[in-house]
Amino acid sequence: MASYAKRLWLEEDLGDDYRWSYRVSEVLFSGRSEYQEVDLVDTPTWGKVLLLDGKMQSTEADEEVYHELLVHPTLLHHPNPKRVFIMGGGEGATAREVLRHRSVEQVVMVDIDKVVTDFCSQHLARNQAAFRDPRLTLINDDARVQLEAAEDASFDVIIADLADPLDGGPCYQLYTQEFYRNVVLRKLAPGGVFVTQSGPAGFLSCREVFASIHATVRSVFPAVLAYAQHIPSFCDTWGFNIGFQDPQQAPVLSPEEMDARISERISNGPLGFLDGTTFAGLRQLNKMVRAALEGPDVEVYTLDNARFIHGAGVKSAGS
Amino acid sequence: MASYAKRLWLEEDLGDDYRWSYRVSEVLFSGRSEYQEVDLVDTPTWGKVLLLDGKMQSTEADEEVYHELLVHPTLLHHPNPKRVFIMGGGEGATAREVLRHRSVEQVVMVDIDKVVTDFCSQHLARNQAAFRDPRLTLINDDARVQLEAAEDASFDVIIADLADPLDGGPCYQLYTQEFYRNVVLRKLAPGGVFVTQSGPAGFLSCREVFASIHATVRSVFPAVLAYAQHIPSFCDTWGFNIGFQDPQQAPVLSPEEMDARISERISNGPLGFLDGTTFAGLRQLNKMVRAALEGPDVEVYTLDNARFIHGAGVKSAGS
Amino acid sequence: MASYAKRLWLEEDLGDDYRWSYRVSEVLFSGRSEYQEVDLVDTPTWGKVLLLDGKMQSTEADEEVYHELLVHPTLLHHPNPKRVFIMGGGEGATAREVLRHRSVEQVVMVDIDKVVTDFCSQHLARNQAAFRDPRLTLINDDARVQLEAAEDASFDVIIADLADPLDGGPCYQLYTQEFYRNVVLRKLAPGGVFVTQSGPAGFLSCREVFASIHATVRSVFPAVLAYAQHIPSFCDTWGFNIGFQDPQQAPVLSPEEMDARISERISNGPLGFLDGTTFAGLRQLNKMVRAALEGPDVEVYTLDNARFIHGAGVKSAGS
Amino acid sequence: MASYAKRLWLEEDLGDDYRWSYRVSEVLFSGRSEYQEVDLVDTPTWGKVLLLDGKMQSTEADEEVYHELLVHPTLLHHPNPKRVFIMGGGEGATAREVLRHRSVEQVVMVDIDKVVTDFCSQHLARNQAAFRDPRLTLINDDARVQLEAAEDASFDVIIADLADPLDGGPCYQLYTQEFYRNVVLRKLAPGGVFVTQSGPAGFLSCREVFASIHATVRSVFPAVLAYAQHIPSFCDTWGFNIGFQDPQQAPVLSPEEMDARISERISNGPLGFLDGTTFAGLRQLNKMVRAALEGPDVEVYTLDNARFIHGAGVKSAGS
Repeated sequence: MASYAKRLWLEEDLGDDYRWSYRVSEVLFSGRSEYQEVDLVDTPTWGKVLLLDGKMQSTEADEEVYHELLVHPTLLHHPNPKRVFIMGGGEGATAREVLRHRSVEQVVMVDIDKVVTDFCSQHLARNQAAFRDPRLTLINDDARVQLEAAEDASFDVIIADLADPLDGGPCYQLYTQEFYRNVVLRKLAPGGVFVTQSGPAGFLSCREVFASIHATVRSVFPAVLAYAQHIPSFCDTWGFNIGFQDPQQAPVLSPEEMDARISERISNGPLGFLDGTTFAGLRQLNKMVRAALEGPDVEVYTLDNARFIHGAGVKSAGS
Repeated sequence: MASYAKRLWLEEDLGDDYRWSYRVSEVLFSGRSEYQEVDLVDTPTWGKVLLLDGKMQSTEADEEVYHELLVHPTLLHHPNPKRVFIMGGGEGATAREVLRHRSVEQVVMVDIDKVVTDFCSQHLARNQAAFRDPRLTLINDDARVQLEAAEDASFDVIIADLADPLDGGPCYQLYTQEFYRNVVLRKLAPGGVFVTQSGPAGFLSCREVFASIHATVRSVFPAVLAYAQHIPSFCDTWGFNIGFQDPQQAPVLSPEEMDARISERISNGPLGFLDGTTFAGLRQLNKMVRAALEGPDVEVYTLDNARFIHGAGVKSAGS
Repeated sequence: MASYAKRLWLEEDLGDDYRWSYRVSEVLFSGRSEYQEVDLVDTPTWGKVLLLDGKMQSTEADEEVYHELLVHPTLLHHPNPKRVFIMGGGEGATAREVLRHRSVEQVVMVDIDKVVTDFCSQHLARNQAAFRDPRLTLINDDARVQLEAAEDASFDVIIADLADPLDGGPCYQLYTQEFYRNVVLRKLAPGGVFVTQSGPAGFLSCREVFASIHATVRSVFPAVLAYAQHIPSFCDTWGFNIGFQDPQQAPVLSPEEMDARISERISNGPLGFLDGTTFAGLRQLNKMVRAALEGPDVEVYTLDNARFIHGAGVKSAGS
Repeated sequence: MASYAKRLWLEEDLGDDYRWSYRVSEVLFSGRSEYQEVDLVDTPTWGKVLLLDGKMQSTEADEEVYHELLVHPTLLHHPNPKRVFIMGGGEGATAREVLRHRSVEQVVMVDIDKVVTDFCSQHLARNQAAFRDPRLTLINDDARVQLEAAEDASFDVIIADLADPLDGGPCYQLYTQEFYRNVVLRKLAPGGVFVTQSGPAGFLSCREVFASIHATVRSVFPAVLAYAQHIPSFCDTWGFNIGFQDPQQAPVLSPEEMDARISERISNGPLGFLDGTTFAGLRQLNKMVRAALEGPDVEVYTLDNARFIHGAGVKSAGS
């Protein structure tokens, strides 16, 4: 066993001249869709790891942190979130966290790849209950098409759990000013809140996409809140941006208010990672990242001019 | 050139089943002391990298962030730091940051390895001025011996820029309760402040040494302040602990106070990474790390019972 | 697909400071016995690869060459081989090649690991017919126990298709003078011929085990014939030693005689790799290897003094 | 030291999905010419290794075998070699072996890269005497230009120690029918012999270039002799082709004749690797390789149609 395990490695490029490798002890399940390969492997370092096209999507060791941070700050900032739309999120963990909110009555999750959602609902034990929750409507389609087709003002919260805006990838349109203005903002109910995963947000990496996603959200929403946390299995600090439809309602919950809402609203005990103090830390970005966000040269993503990041080392959270 | 560079890689184990590699474009200088090998290599990912025994010590890309965080919060919390003792720090960057404080009159830096200090004073352009600053006294000796030999109450600030408390390594005694109580605390002048680099402090890694170093500092000093920041070239979030001799003077500067002191006290322009807001973020540790620090099972390092971490993936910041 | 395949690599140590890696496009089947893990993976470089404990056992690309060389020179040098005993060989390819000889009436194959033989009979298409051939008796047991229990003088040919005599491994006794003298030689019928895979036989590697296996066979058998061929997937030249019970019958078939016997005796067309000229080349070892075999310092393996090779980069052909 | 050495690796692609790595204990010397980078590194596996553009050129462990095989069979088949022309060979080892022949009066070695020849004459201890031998004329120029400029019929032996005919590389013209017919054959004195390194010649790799180089030599020279040997540091069996101007004189020395000529003609003791028996083995190619050489589809390299191999894993012996 030991000797076997020493020999099979997953290697991931983190940059052109920079990569990491982690040992795979077992390939648990493999599948393939028309869009991508799907694998679940076991590793000594990260526990079970979900791979899409051989790339780390989430790990048993730290997916909870990523998903808590994607979901809860947004829902906690909304006064009473009932209807939630998830773009992507096929793994099921985003829905799992959303469904912990007692106020939530309906979750619509739209992920294009049925093979992924079937695979995850079958093989990811943590997320099985979410897939079977009667409040969840799972649709395998293009998230944009489904959101455009929804009635205006129909969602309290919209969550973008999508792959980074890779050049040529299918997700880039979902990061543009046009999409935010013409679709997302319009589908939010009054007081609605939007959040998007926003790529690497370290002081060395935040200019790749994080700064532009932030600028794009800010160009459309009356108020925006950025925060970031180091996620070990992404090998970087990861960023998020919340857009508020109503600037009055908006930032920022005090640590005490956040703690109070967590205990009132969230079922299944307190959260593992997030609380008021944690969030107070994460939303006070460091000087280098703030300089990047505030720089005069940050580009807003539009359908025309979006510069998109390329290649490796990028979380593909959604599609 | 491109093809050459593709072929020489530095590989570093980050754990038993987990490693990373980065391409080396050129081996610039190599030396060897009785303690270790010293190399300066150039890399596309990190710029120039200083290696001790083939292990990343600091990189052009992010050493500034590490050294700002090691030095400035501590000196800024002291009302008027004049005399500073650095344990380790052979690279010279810690001294460089200390010497930016206009109040500083004397810096004693004790690093055991003359080959390293000679190498760095010669080859690291950023630190050359620090090595030649008349306020700096550089001694190549055991830091403990020199600190013990110093007059009591002689330093306003003591900085431990040492290798992690590796099992069998030379530095573990410098992380014990006995050393803090019998040496460090005694050599601090009234109102003195101590800081130690404290190893990995991510939510997955903080139980390795960070929690114990924190507990050990807290067991000796009347007040303690912990903070952490993701350092890309260490592939983890990195922790620091400040110990205050005088609890009255102690935590915590407001962001505005910190910003004011930075502009009053520090020469050569504002800092690149640190300001009041940055520090306010970093000292509000997340819930998982706080739980680790506050857990009932955290061991205080003593000469007798210190459990020390092993092996790879560990910053050897000092010796 | 391409991106996935780029990321999963099998890494094999070829020495302490030396390794290779080949990309795995798919893990086809995995199993585990009480002795070892068994996997069949697909690779762009070698086609399908059988792994025991994660180590390359044989590849679609070149197993034919290894198995032709293990089997045919020995059977062709026997005047009329009818009864054949295979030690190890669980993969089935050795039996497959033996069964191509029209004269063969009975093959006894003894491999300790039923999981391996079941796995290979099910998943290795090339060898399925051999596993089902009525002339084959497959026994899952210790090869030594079974050979000792056989009637004396019962086999025309005995083939050792075993793991290298690794230190501590289960196979080392099967490479000793005692075993050859007390068991192998005794079980051979008059005119009988023995062959053993004999490990790396390159000019840099032949002193590891090849020279000693040669010396050991020579110390027991009246005549011995060594030959070697570069096998790409073993990343070395590989050696074989034939021991002849009867020196009269013995070496060496001329190329013409070998070609004639191949066409008379072997079913399913001519061989892919071996013919008389090929063998004439392979049995004329180079000067460095001959010097190693003839050196005064070569150790004969005995139960007492056998020095065994360690570790990695070694063909585990059999058990 | 040990820990350092564990971390710096030279990685070489052996194919698209297949690579190896060996540990570098020290980078001894580095240089750069207008053509390529030149490095001498020390490794535990191969001893000192010469790298051109980061690619293994020759190693202390086995360069002797390659160079003996390139040089001696050709000179030994010539009745009395006095004047020798070396294309490439900048490392100096080819000249070193040629100069061991007592009959040799003049060696002209033409390698384009003065930085390489300076570097090797300075740093490769084994070859220093050759570089200083008064019989050697070293010219840094294009080998083709110099050979074309030579008087007709001026050399007894011409040796091509060149990089493989890589697509786009500078050497491909030196492997064409036109070059052999119009230049090489014409510059050979009566009874002259030509040899060229001929790339990978394993049963899996011989169709890459070896078969075509063989066919091209055979299409011009009245007689041709091919042979091959596994060279560990090239990770393959390596091929050579000798072309004889005079079919009468030609193949093949019996082992006894070759041994006799070695002891008569070669200074500095017997050869380490080559003798008559060795060569008798190497020139009897295996059935698969013979089939490749004799196949109807083998292409002769011409200026027009040469298909050239691409990429990695290829000896660049000369330029």
